Amino acid sequence: MAQDLKTLTLEELIPGGDTYRYAENLYNLQWWGETCIKPEIDTLFAINPANGKEQVLTTREAVNGVLNANGIKPIQHFYSTSFPWKDKTYMLIQTAGNYLVYDWKGNKVVSSTEYPKEAANQDYNEQSENLAYTIGNNLYINGKQITDEKQGVVCGQSVHRNEFGIGKGTFWNPEGNKLAFYRMDESMVTEYPLVDVTARIAEANTIRYPMAGMESHQVQVGIYNPATEKTLFLNTGDATDRYFTNISWSPDSEKLYLIELNRDQNHAKLCQYNANTGELERVLLEEKHDKYVEPQNPIVFLPWNEKEFIYQSQRDGYNHLYLYNTDGKLIRQITQGAWIVQNLIGFNARTKEAIIASTEDSPLQSNLYRVNIGNGKRAVIGNHEGVHRATLSESGDYLIDTYTSPTTPRNIDIVRLKDNKTQRLLTAANPYDGYQMPVIETGTIKAADGVTDLYYRLIKPADMDTTQKHPAIVYVYGGPHAQMVTNGFLNGARGWDIYMANKGYVMLSVDNRGSSNRGLAFENATFRQLGIEEGKDQVKGAEFLQSLPYVDGSRIGVHGWSFGGHMTTALLLRYPEIYKVGVAGGPVIDWKYYEIMYGERYMDSPESNPEGYELTNLNNEAGKLQGRLLMIHDDHDDTCVPQHALSFIKSCVDARTYPDLFIYPGHKHNVLGRDRVHLHQTITRYFEDHL
Amino acid sequence: MAQDLKTLTLEELIPGGDTYRYAENLYNLQWWGETCIKPEIDTLFAINPANGKEQVLTTREAVNGVLNANGIKPIQHFYSTSFPWKDKTYMLIQTAGNYLVYDWKGNKVVSSTEYPKEAANQDYNEQSENLAYTIGNNLYINGKQITDEKQGVVCGQSVHRNEFGIGKGTFWNPEGNKLAFYRMDESMVTEYPLVDVTARIAEANTIRYPMAGMESHQVQVGIYNPATEKTLFLNTGDATDRYFTNISWSPDSEKLYLIELNRDQNHAKLCQYNANTGELERVLLEEKHDKYVEPQNPIVFLPWNEKEFIYQSQRDGYNHLYLYNTDGKLIRQITQGAWIVQNLIGFNARTKEAIIASTEDSPLQSNLYRVNIGNGKRAVIGNHEGVHRATLSESGDYLIDTYTSPTTPRNIDIVRLKDNKTQRLLTAANPYDGYQMPVIETGTIKAADGVTDLYYRLIKPADMDTTQKHPAIVYVYGGPHAQMVTNGFLNGARGWDIYMANKGYVMLSVDNRGSSNRGLAFENATFRQLGIEEGKDQVKGAEFLQSLPYVDGSRIGVHGWSFGGHMTTALLLRYPEIYKVGVAGGPVIDWKYYEIMYGERYMDSPESNPEGYELTNLNNEAGKLQGRLLMIHDDHDDTCVPQHALSFIKSCVDARTYPDLFIYPGHKHNVLGRDRVHLHQTITRYFEDHL
Repeated sequence: MAQDLKTLTLEELIPGGDTYRYAENLYNLQWWGETCIKPEIDTLFAINPANGKEQVLTTREAVNGVLNANGIKPIQHFYSTSFPWKDKTYMLIQTAGNYLVYDWKGNKVVSSTEYPKEAANQDYNEQSENLAYTIGNNLYINGKQITDEKQGVVCGQSVHRNEFGIGKGTFWNPEGNKLAFYRMDESMVTEYPLVDVTARIAEANTIRYPMAGMESHQVQVGIYNPATEKTLFLNTGDATDRYFTNISWSPDSEKLYLIELNRDQNHAKLCQYNANTGELERVLLEEKHDKYVEPQNPIVFLPWNEKEFIYQSQRDGYNHLYLYNTDGKLIRQITQGAWIVQNLIGFNARTKEAIIASTEDSPLQSNLYRVNIGNGKRAVIGNHEGVHRATLSESGDYLIDTYTSPTTPRNIDIVRLKDNKTQRLLTAANPYDGYQMPVIETGTIKAADGVTDLYYRLIKPADMDTTQKHPAIVYVYGGPHAQMVTNGFLNGARGWDIYMANKGYVMLSVDNRGSSNRGLAFENATFRQLGIEEGKDQVKGAEFLQSLPYVDGSRIGVHGWSFGGHMTTALLLRYPEIYKVGVAGGPVIDWKYYEIMYGERYMDSPESNPEGYELTNLNNEAGKLQGRLLMIHDDHDDTCVPQHALSFIKSCVDARTYPDLFIYPGHKHNVLGRDRVHLHQTITRYFEDHL
Repeated sequence: MAQDLKTLTLEELIPGGDTYRYAENLYNLQWWGETCIKPEIDTLFAINPANGKEQVLTTREAVNGVLNANGIKPIQHFYSTSFPWKDKTYMLIQTAGNYLVYDWKGNKVVSSTEYPKEAANQDYNEQSENLAYTIGNNLYINGKQITDEKQGVVCGQSVHRNEFGIGKGTFWNPEGNKLAFYRMDESMVTEYPLVDVTARIAEANTIRYPMAGMESHQVQVGIYNPATEKTLFLNTGDATDRYFTNISWSPDSEKLYLIELNRDQNHAKLCQYNANTGELERVLLEEKHDKYVEPQNPIVFLPWNEKEFIYQSQRDGYNHLYLYNTDGKLIRQITQGAWIVQNLIGFNARTKEAIIASTEDSPLQSNLYRVNIGNGKRAVIGNHEGVHRATLSESGDYLIDTYTSPTTPRNIDIVRLKDNKTQRLLTAANPYDGYQMPVIETGTIKAADGVTDLYYRLIKPADMDTTQKHPAIVYVYGGPHAQMVTNGFLNGARGWDIYMANKGYVMLSVDNRGSSNRGLAFENATFRQLGIEEGKDQVKGAEFLQSLPYVDGSRIGVHGWSFGGHMTTALLLRYPEIYKVGVAGGPVIDWKYYEIMYGERYMDSPESNPEGYELTNLNNEAGKLQGRLLMIHDDHDDTCVPQHALSFIKSCVDARTYPDLFIYPGHKHNVLGRDRVHLHQTITRYFEDHL
């Protein structure tokens, strides 16, 4: 029977491959008030959420006819449209140089806001039609330059290296007539040279990279008023060694809220600033923790009460919702339990419910719930399986539910919240139908602490001869903020895992302590010594492999990238009797070469935790290399700089041990695009050569 | 019998190894007038050249007693002493901060010239006791700063990247009261970043690297007069795209001679400047060639005639000596024949002879001859074997002859020129006595042109089973200015060659067309397409290997560094059916990334020879890689910058081919010192893994 099945190639399995296979999708499904909008290339559809009926709103031909008459370049598809005006038949079309407001009913261009080619970080407010963006290191609004900073000072962009949930640098107030923005002075941060070998003569592209223990950048928050053309900076006091995170506006635009954090990251304050004076009015609440606190979510006001907001905290060990008022008084803890609120999706003002995604059903899942703000009562939305992602309608009566499960490549439903009535929009075909596929299982093993359950995913070759011993490869990440084993499609298995299993390797991944979605204690067990406890847990995974009758316990390989590159290297060095071959990509080798924000959260600083940095510095272990280790780094890796791999190579040369090395020129903190197939062929060949 | 022999390790065979074995030597043997001086750690000996009798001149204890009394740091040995004053019982001692003139007979310090710790390029004149040196980019004499240049302008150092025989930047006149020096403005030369990963945060160490076809540095020649404290610059006109080489003073210090060369390097002029006015007085002679001329030797005046000098030229196809007078008139060609004068060692004024080293006996050899200036008659000095190096006594009646031959690790004799009477000073023991050694043979094969003889060296495992097929590895260099096969000790075999032969590999080296010591036509056959003809010749070597009954013709590997790295890569790409495995170290990949002086000599410029650059750019061939290729580069390679290897890696990734890569952090254009053992273990492992 297997003979009839086709064999998957890396080109089919790896994103970027010429014939990459992926589950069908509906892109940029969204809401226009209570109407679901389905954009396609040539046609824009409206779907009635009550019955699933589709109608054509307009066509590309019609729109381009109008655009052409107005001297505007035609659009190529409807995927860059949005519908922020629920009461108007307008759509917003973002083109390469324009935000167009287009009346799809009246067939006319309502307005056009242009931006220059070099603009980045565009932030359009649909109320005021103001457009903020950056050029170089400065901030612009509607063509006007707002800041004029020297090199080394950056305005209007994300700060603190995108930690603390920060993903952008501009924040319009609800009316769009005031813009809060970040200003980051990083002129005191040492420059790191990344060498571009594609220039006629190689050039150093320098980045400001604040390394653990070194001087950090300083951040301010400004508020610009387009009407007065004035910028006010919040009076935060000395910005040295402080993080200004999770900016949000009060509904009345009078206040700006920030969560401020000390450099030690063990003391957070929710601060209310007067948006007119810039003065700190009060600290609404504080959180401390012996290890670290990690605010990642701005406060969100209840749509029906301008004095109450939801604050997210891990203070009871799991991320949950708390209702506070603007006096800083805790009204109630809304959710509770040994599970995590992963996402506050929105509200239904009529039913006074919040809509969330959580792990309540399983740590491997993300399921949708509506939660009564008053009494905490919850009801599932959609089903209790798999991994769900939702987009809520304006009222909160409906949502678009996109989900996968181990056997579901992707289903998309419109769900009516009150009764879970669903309209199916898509049942994606399995992209691997007709191909030979391995067998995928999940389960739990005990962590090295003897108590904690760890989830694993085991992938076995199809029609495996269980009387034969098979080589095994562990794919590992192991760090915070990520999880390898899920109840998503194929349990989160990656294309390369499938490829290797099809080649006869038994593939294992284990989410060790320190990884995400299991709560604070699970995560912070690794504090001040990243990689140590994680490694012990991975050894339990390797022992599990060795216990399997069809695994050759003397032929265990390991591969991972970034934190997983650290783990791979650490496992080969610390457990040479277990791991024979490793491929470590973009590894952290010495945490003192990693950046301040992420690094010091988990490791503290090299000055305050010298023993932890020594213990985890893999340069110190270079002499213990016995197996075969291929280290891969990208020469433009601005997340985990090449100094990690190259310092390790030097340590090995000094210690007379013999790693292998490969460099991908021009790539950042992973090899993406078409070259990703090359990467995985390189990884594959290394295991075939040596395991 | 072989069982009784020890096996050589890499630590014993590779320079830098902990137990490196090398032939005994006498360091810094030299002349004091007609007395041979033999320095040792504790004792300074004088040797009578007529009978070889040794006597103690002084002891370290005696000298250090005097130094101590003068408050001067003690010396550690006598190896840094010299004896430039034939009529005085003085020696010159260079210490870390001092040139001491010391009377070894009178037991006193005669004078002391200090220089600061940061001084480099010290140039001491024993007549005037003036000391020139550089600090940073400026020139100093006796503690006084002579030049005051901005960064990007360098004075008193070697220029033109040490091509054209240039090795220093200061040139005292005979009396030591005027200093000619180079001034190089390289501020217009693009900086290349070499990244130091050992810094706390990696830093770019930039070098000014003039790449082929790009803007080059500009050189001037100054003459500083310590008495007037004035500097005069030669009036050479616009220095753009010109080379100022081979500086020499006239015996009366009135003239300065330079050999000037155009950027195309096909037109050289011997120019006489007035040292008092800086004006060009005359062009004594010119040389042109369709391909290139390469002046490498300053003119040298006859000690007995201030109007006549020796000029070296390849104009008849081989480097020979020509006698000219200061009117630019050729008096006679002194040497002639299908062999090369390698070195003009000196003169005997009494017999009117020049003493030279030449290849007259064999292209693999360097033998010493005295040549009558008047009639060209030659007589050998020492013997007709091996490779000789000589140091001539003041009168030229005696020389110290250090030589090796295939079976002679190192012999040192004092030879009386008139009758070849010798006093043996050293017969070094074979450093490999008691160890198993392979069998080394040399011979010739025909080049790809079907006519030219190429010399090869074949190394076969000891007690080889000739009924078995052995893998073979070619060690290749292949570029100009070097020769792999000689009649020196073990025929020039390197430690690694011996190591691999002992492991059962048959090792071959062939000096292809383009390499040195065979004359101009042999060398310049490769003009404008480096690597092409050389590769065809190397294929002849591989075919020779395949013709040997004990070689497995399907298992041929190749290894080389620099030009040899280019050759290795080129051979794997162009002849995948022959070469299975290669290790290319510090390779040139694209000649446009190589420097102007060497690169444009052989390749012209990318603008004038686009087809040659395209043809030889290995990036264009990256898709043809079939065998296993390990590319090794040093991250501080300032000769062949890392852009070569890394651009090739990128080309292979683009082309979906799969080379291997290794980087040695902190090393320059080869891995030297202790790490050289690591390098050779890495190379060895690669062949063991894949050949």
